[in-house]
Amino acid sequence: MSLRKSMVNRGLLILTCFFSFVIQLCLASKTRHFKWEVEYMYWSPDCMEGVVMGINGQFPGPTIRAVAGDTIVVELTNRLHTEGVVIHWHGIRQFGTPWADGTASISQCAINPGETFIYRYKVDKAGTYFYHGHYGMQRSAGLYGSLVVEVGEGQKEPFHYDGEFNLLLSDWWHKGSQEQEVALSSKPFRWIGEPQTLLINGRGQYNCSLAAHVTNSSSPQCQFRGNEQCSPQILHVQPHKTYRLRVSSTTALASLNLQIGNHKMVMVEADGNYIQPVAVDDLDIYSGESYSVLIHTDQDPSKNYWISVSVRGREPKTPQGLTILNYQTTSASKLPTSTPPVSPLWNDYNHSKSFSNKILALMGSPKPPTTYNRRIILLNTQNTINGFTKWAINNISLTLPPTPYLGAIKHRLSNAFDQKSPPENFPNDYDVMKPPTNTNSTYGNGVYMLEFRTTVDVILQNANALATGVSEIHPWHLHGHDFWVLGYGEGKFREKDAKRFNLKNPPLRNTAVIFPFGWTALRFVADNPGVWAFHCHIEPHLHMGMGVVFAEGVHLVKDVPNHALACGLTGKMLMSNYSHH
Amino acid sequence: MSLRKSMVNRGLLILTCFFSFVIQLCLASKTRHFKWEVEYMYWSPDCMEGVVMGINGQFPGPTIRAVAGDTIVVELTNRLHTEGVVIHWHGIRQFGTPWADGTASISQCAINPGETFIYRYKVDKAGTYFYHGHYGMQRSAGLYGSLVVEVGEGQKEPFHYDGEFNLLLSDWWHKGSQEQEVALSSKPFRWIGEPQTLLINGRGQYNCSLAAHVTNSSSPQCQFRGNEQCSPQILHVQPHKTYRLRVSSTTALASLNLQIGNHKMVMVEADGNYIQPVAVDDLDIYSGESYSVLIHTDQDPSKNYWISVSVRGREPKTPQGLTILNYQTTSASKLPTSTPPVSPLWNDYNHSKSFSNKILALMGSPKPPTTYNRRIILLNTQNTINGFTKWAINNISLTLPPTPYLGAIKHRLSNAFDQKSPPENFPNDYDVMKPPTNTNSTYGNGVYMLEFRTTVDVILQNANALATGVSEIHPWHLHGHDFWVLGYGEGKFREKDAKRFNLKNPPLRNTAVIFPFGWTALRFVADNPGVWAFHCHIEPHLHMGMGVVFAEGVHLVKDVPNHALACGLTGKMLMSNYSHH
Repeated sequence: MSLRKSMVNRGLLILTCFFSFVIQLCLASKTRHFKWEVEYMYWSPDCMEGVVMGINGQFPGPTIRAVAGDTIVVELTNRLHTEGVVIHWHGIRQFGTPWADGTASISQCAINPGETFIYRYKVDKAGTYFYHGHYGMQRSAGLYGSLVVEVGEGQKEPFHYDGEFNLLLSDWWHKGSQEQEVALSSKPFRWIGEPQTLLINGRGQYNCSLAAHVTNSSSPQCQFRGNEQCSPQILHVQPHKTYRLRVSSTTALASLNLQIGNHKMVMVEADGNYIQPVAVDDLDIYSGESYSVLIHTDQDPSKNYWISVSVRGREPKTPQGLTILNYQTTSASKLPTSTPPVSPLWNDYNHSKSFSNKILALMGSPKPPTTYNRRIILLNTQNTINGFTKWAINNISLTLPPTPYLGAIKHRLSNAFDQKSPPENFPNDYDVMKPPTNTNSTYGNGVYMLEFRTTVDVILQNANALATGVSEIHPWHLHGHDFWVLGYGEGKFREKDAKRFNLKNPPLRNTAVIFPFGWTALRFVADNPGVWAFHCHIEPHLHMGMGVVFAEGVHLVKDVPNHALACGLTGKMLMSNYSHH
Repeated sequence: MSLRKSMVNRGLLILTCFFSFVIQLCLASKTRHFKWEVEYMYWSPDCMEGVVMGINGQFPGPTIRAVAGDTIVVELTNRLHTEGVVIHWHGIRQFGTPWADGTASISQCAINPGETFIYRYKVDKAGTYFYHGHYGMQRSAGLYGSLVVEVGEGQKEPFHYDGEFNLLLSDWWHKGSQEQEVALSSKPFRWIGEPQTLLINGRGQYNCSLAAHVTNSSSPQCQFRGNEQCSPQILHVQPHKTYRLRVSSTTALASLNLQIGNHKMVMVEADGNYIQPVAVDDLDIYSGESYSVLIHTDQDPSKNYWISVSVRGREPKTPQGLTILNYQTTSASKLPTSTPPVSPLWNDYNHSKSFSNKILALMGSPKPPTTYNRRIILLNTQNTINGFTKWAINNISLTLPPTPYLGAIKHRLSNAFDQKSPPENFPNDYDVMKPPTNTNSTYGNGVYMLEFRTTVDVILQNANALATGVSEIHPWHLHGHDFWVLGYGEGKFREKDAKRFNLKNPPLRNTAVIFPFGWTALRFVADNPGVWAFHCHIEPHLHMGMGVVFAEGVHLVKDVPNHALACGLTGKMLMSNYSHH
């Protein structure tokens, strides 16, 4: 949203309040209602037509803007013909409303075609969030959008800005998500390949780069009138102002690096938490993460500047995503004269690690407990099961059950999922630097039952994948909580590594990456009654079993709507008491 | 199945009975158990790889063979990732088990991913049937297979044969069924086009015709080892025998014509009912129909003969489907020297009508009641609703509700569907020979409530579609019943046409076609408690609203499994009594 538009909106809000004659209500938190319909539609996200999963005829879905403390009510109607649907509100902790977390098989039954489910939850903390499908690979199909929570009335952000923009990053394939699912589930396994296009706010340009205008590339060029579904969303700025860029990544696969030609970025927020301001030339962002950066428009206002998004962590086969930072004193159609910024080498992990280590909590942020009650070590491996290629955690590849855990645990349905707790660790002699000697793992859907209000440490341990010398990046996302990132390390985690944990100013986040052959240590307090997914945010990896499930204080959960439980064994149980006439 | 194989199977059955020492049980009806899993998989139905919906790793799904009086139990597990699924047992009347009819929104809730639903029903009548998906366009995705019911022990067919073959015909698109749904539901409407390939038992050859070997065609030729997924299924016969060919069509769109070079066919069964034997050179078969024909292998046994399947009723853009009738005295790889039989012109409707009029009940078949209690006239029109292209019946385009009718009516949930009965007729001044003057119709999902055990006449009235001079073929299929086809006529049905109804030997069927600009008169007795779809069997037409719903004696329906009602308002109601701890 441009500065001017933003100002107009604030004006309208104040007027509304004035005329309502109840100023105190206006200052108090609001309930914001949305009626959404999810459906497939033809769309051209990258100038090539395909099928996307849209909301109310839009792709990406509508942006929700709210104020901290507000209650969001989304009446979600499923207009798909045969598929269920859910929406996860990524980064919103769902205190008191674990059934509204929007995770199929975990917090609720998928919404049937033709039916409407009402999500109702509080956005208690200002920040940059997003939402997306969390059933099968519907996120890959394009079911996502932005969720921006502003500070409450009378509150202030710990930084100043004159205007803001929202950049939701994603990646796009020309092969439909349904066929991607079939490919990944086939024996032999078929990999989906790298995305065709990177999208900024759902817009990219396949085979038609803006940069062709200024490089000597012979690739076809595109002229945009600006009203095409794939035309880049240009950021119009005024000179000598400070802008907040809210950047989130809901990529299915790609790890990204964002740069703005000639402009430094000062990071101030990560995953809805304030961080120690730090200036960077380029921003690494993994799927599931969000950042706010401030830029100052102090460059030559007679020029425009590239904003570029590039792939990191995998050998890039996808062209940069590009748009323009336009000084409004200049024509928006005037392209930068320089070539777009080049990102660090895709496998320059030192650069990435250095970047991640720069992210520290803003002074005054909540500090982690100094000790933990339970430490769970999660080994991330690529495996095979009966010839199928899978990902496994401590040798268990997650297969989500048809009955949602929340209802199953609440109603003690012991046959709804594996009752045996998954392993807390992996064998001591496992060599994380080599391919597994025995690639076999098993399917499972057990739950890590966490004592309510205890402090849990999780060590995410990366390892060599099936191929020798290969270890991939995995951004792990935790539902229902923020965690403190206590540290990153190389090789196998050892007890003595815990001594180097940052307990002073570790950042609070909901997503953290493990680097190839490394480990990442997280700490969180299990203080949110519910059942919560914790998983690699790479969509194909989750689909291949890369996740675990945490549960805590489920006996305290109240008012789960029956509608959230109308499937599987909870549905069966809830219907069993009905006395037929 | 070849003669030899068939004989071997019979031998095995007798042995089993002998060793069981309970011959009477063997003669009595059996329960046949099947465990099926539905999933998407890569397959090459026409030598081009695509995604099909298979059962237990097979496409088409496994053939069910049973004996009249048997009980079939299919434990159907949905292994799709986000889609529900149901299976309809086409032609099986489901007396006493209307909840097992396998129609989403009508007889049951779709089975959720990961869940298992148990279909249990009697096959009370020998005949040639098939089964298929009945949710969204899952039939187009390839969810179908054959269901063959043999006469009970001690019973005899009214004709003799030495062996039999089963030919399930279908049509295949390279565009996935999901995208087809999006295309049809788009504004502006996008037609899916003609199928790429015709399949015989799930096998066809795209861009690689067997006939290229004997014609001067320059099209690429294919050599088959015979084990390819797309290699034609050759019919191996012995000279001087009689074979029964069971032919069914589960095409999504195409009306077909089947011919066997040099061999006459004698039709003996239609839709599971015996008909007066009649010799034909070629067989018209519409989607939803099945026939048995007898052929006598009395031709030169040193040659092989073409079996060809061609498109009728739409300007054909799809090559013939071909396979070989192989006299086993000759090598199966020896191709016929002649060109494949050429079907009648696609728009030679006189030929088609003459064919349909040849189908008469076998002497001794049940006769229709001589009078009717209620006559419903159903005008078939193509319409627009808010710019969407639809089909409508008496100006109502059917949109199936999220709550299945069976449970909704049984539990008197008056807000589950339109309580107003749909119209019994259309305005007298409507000109069926011209495009609609007002193309607008409305969405609706009301039910024709039929008095139990009354006789209902339905006049299906065809009309001009949206384009001038165009009227399409629609094969209408009734669930839960056979109907008598009392007659076909041209133009608008008039009262005096009823005088020409065939009440003497009308055939009993479950599917009947309406010809362009014509009408078809049907009579049935509403004697099967349940809720029953009646619809055009062309998959895109049903998807576009071309159907109605009949209900009768629902108060007599017992033992509907809760699982069939665990969605929508029935799910809500059934769960409402649960007392939470």
